[in-house]
Amino acid sequence: MKPGKVLVAQGGGPTAVINQSLVGAVLEARKFPRVERVYGALYGVRGIVDEEFIDLTQETTHNLERVADTPGSALGSTRDKPDEKYCAEILKVLMAHNIRCFFYIGGNDSSDTLRIVEEFAKQANYELITIHIPKTIDNDLMVNDHTPGFPSAARFVASAFAGINLDNRALPGVYVGVVMGRHAGFLTAASALGRKCRDDGPHLICLPERNFEMGAFLTEVKSIYDRLGRCVIAVSEGIHDASGAPMLSSLTTNMERDAHGNLQLSGTGALADLLTNAIRKNLGIKRVRGDTFGYLQRSYLGVVSDVDQREAREVGEKACQFALWNGASGTVTIHRIGHYAVEYRLDPMISVAGKTRIMPDIFINAQGTDVTDAFKFYLTPLLGSGMPESFRLRAPRVPRILTAK
Amino acid sequence: MKPGKVLVAQGGGPTAVINQSLVGAVLEARKFPRVERVYGALYGVRGIVDEEFIDLTQETTHNLERVADTPGSALGSTRDKPDEKYCAEILKVLMAHNIRCFFYIGGNDSSDTLRIVEEFAKQANYELITIHIPKTIDNDLMVNDHTPGFPSAARFVASAFAGINLDNRALPGVYVGVVMGRHAGFLTAASALGRKCRDDGPHLICLPERNFEMGAFLTEVKSIYDRLGRCVIAVSEGIHDASGAPMLSSLTTNMERDAHGNLQLSGTGALADLLTNAIRKNLGIKRVRGDTFGYLQRSYLGVVSDVDQREAREVGEKACQFALWNGASGTVTIHRIGHYAVEYRLDPMISVAGKTRIMPDIFINAQGTDVTDAFKFYLTPLLGSGMPESFRLRAPRVPRILTAK
Repeated sequence: MKPGKVLVAQGGGPTAVINQSLVGAVLEARKFPRVERVYGALYGVRGIVDEEFIDLTQETTHNLERVADTPGSALGSTRDKPDEKYCAEILKVLMAHNIRCFFYIGGNDSSDTLRIVEEFAKQANYELITIHIPKTIDNDLMVNDHTPGFPSAARFVASAFAGINLDNRALPGVYVGVVMGRHAGFLTAASALGRKCRDDGPHLICLPERNFEMGAFLTEVKSIYDRLGRCVIAVSEGIHDASGAPMLSSLTTNMERDAHGNLQLSGTGALADLLTNAIRKNLGIKRVRGDTFGYLQRSYLGVVSDVDQREAREVGEKACQFALWNGASGTVTIHRIGHYAVEYRLDPMISVAGKTRIMPDIFINAQGTDVTDAFKFYLTPLLGSGMPESFRLRAPRVPRILTAK
Repeated sequence: MKPGKVLVAQGGGPTAVINQSLVGAVLEARKFPRVERVYGALYGVRGIVDEEFIDLTQETTHNLERVADTPGSALGSTRDKPDEKYCAEILKVLMAHNIRCFFYIGGNDSSDTLRIVEEFAKQANYELITIHIPKTIDNDLMVNDHTPGFPSAARFVASAFAGINLDNRALPGVYVGVVMGRHAGFLTAASALGRKCRDDGPHLICLPERNFEMGAFLTEVKSIYDRLGRCVIAVSEGIHDASGAPMLSSLTTNMERDAHGNLQLSGTGALADLLTNAIRKNLGIKRVRGDTFGYLQRSYLGVVSDVDQREAREVGEKACQFALWNGASGTVTIHRIGHYAVEYRLDPMISVAGKTRIMPDIFINAQGTDVTDAFKFYLTPLLGSGMPESFRLRAPRVPRILTAK
């Protein structure tokens, strides 16, 4: 890296550990004399074109450590998806401030932005290192074994379903819990890690990797309910019919779409209500409840995987080391090298930019209604230490006196 | 208590600590030679009339301690509200099994059941001690300073809003979080304890203790949004208009009602969607999201107040001591005797049975849009130790080079 400034920004949906990556990069960058200042852009790329920077060189190490443990994007985030003109604006500001290294913590869209900015910098003959630091609760980045943010969200979802299962066991009925994830079902699948005993829920898992068919769904719910007297269901917000149309889109024609033209799936309880109403009407079951976990699953204060925290910190630190020691641009990727150990590599931006990974078939059972043991083996170490566990009574039945049943 | 058996049952909605009370009563009861057996009824009073008992004398102490830490009702619960005939059936079964002491862990409905059963026992000249052990996340029992289950649910809600506030700060917009509580707003009010800095959300709290008026609500949301560029709102599921009709009832005429004729409020995202749609349409704000916390707030595995755990354990243990040493029936109540210390008393069943406590006026601000410091002082010690805290960056702004704003 040429002497100059380092810039860090955060894009897309916040996670429980995205500030670990921020702090990892900032603390490491502050060690290098070549780094004149470490700036943070407010609200992602939007803050760059607006020249909204804060000087993180003047932030205490102590407070940075506290911020690292805080969920949400401490710099603020954005849903902006820059086009070429926007990227040209970004480069103009970077050049004006002599920013020679730009770390963008985000998902596959963020890496795509960096790819364009880097290209423009080359054309302008401006020496710039751009490094994408991965994060997404969806776990949908290519090349990576998993992405920071996903393990903590998975821990939230697994713990939530573990509790919901206990609640549903005490007051039996049908429960539908809707989990985030448009195309990738990893987070919905994490619900399976909330199970302990054989009859624990979720008893049915509906993933976006398989087409959703209402008739088959109701048949499955009925079969489970008839067998157990209750049924807990984990549903991805992204479930869709064979044509690819989200189930949610069948509800209304007037729904919000994002910059990519995607239907807004989160922030509404409509899908859970659609499914609970269908179950109530078609199966005649009385106690049917639906919850949409919504934003709790990516922002909840106090539920975090320590493995996720460590890795998120390290991808930030590694990004800085790749930039400062190797002078290389790219995306930091996580690779599993044992059970459980990882290493970090710098891969070409193009390997993740704008692409979406979904769950591989080996993680989904043949019927498409549950996960496999391979998935449980994959996810278990990511959830971190101290996962709470549930226990049940095993006392013997007392013989009846009055009634013979 | 006459030599014979002790019976424990759990009624109503489960909580994170209701099994602490169960285990507190069981372990204490097992110490007394007069107690021939300690039975547990499966699924509350329903399990009594069906003679569905398990013998908790044959449960290991070790497993009981693990079950105590597990949320949900380990014995199973019920929503049955027994009438006099049902109560007569209960007494018949108690007599057949020589049950001389009956502990029912539940809310104000459960205590009302005990009141009737006790009366029938007296008429039948059958020596029976009945003790109501308090629990409810709604915190709506009379006489009690607070009720076991509420502090842990409050901790969940406060932590959830602390995280939601961070998420909303990163991606600004309007957020509506719907919290449980039909008549009492304590749990919704707990959202205020998620705030740290002055501009932290929730910025508006809608309680069932005040009438909800859509026009005033929208004006308030607009004012906050204009000032902060964002707005986080905590809403009780029980909000209602001046006539007392729940807002939720305006949505549909075909909603589920419980044994008391009450509208089923939980298990649907309809109220959040009603409010977010009104905000979107009337205020023209684009990013509006709504979540309904639903069953997570009473069952989440791993979020619990240690103060709540201790007290829930003690009310179970005290119930047993009142019964076995004093031979007295009644309801165990919690009284605050310092900041922070409590003591337990045995009060007449009639003092809590069938009554509902709501938030006192001193806990609600004059405008009815927030809580007072008196409420924060009241709730803080209940949340327990180790409440996670959030931190924000305080680095100085960097002067602009290209743009003057």
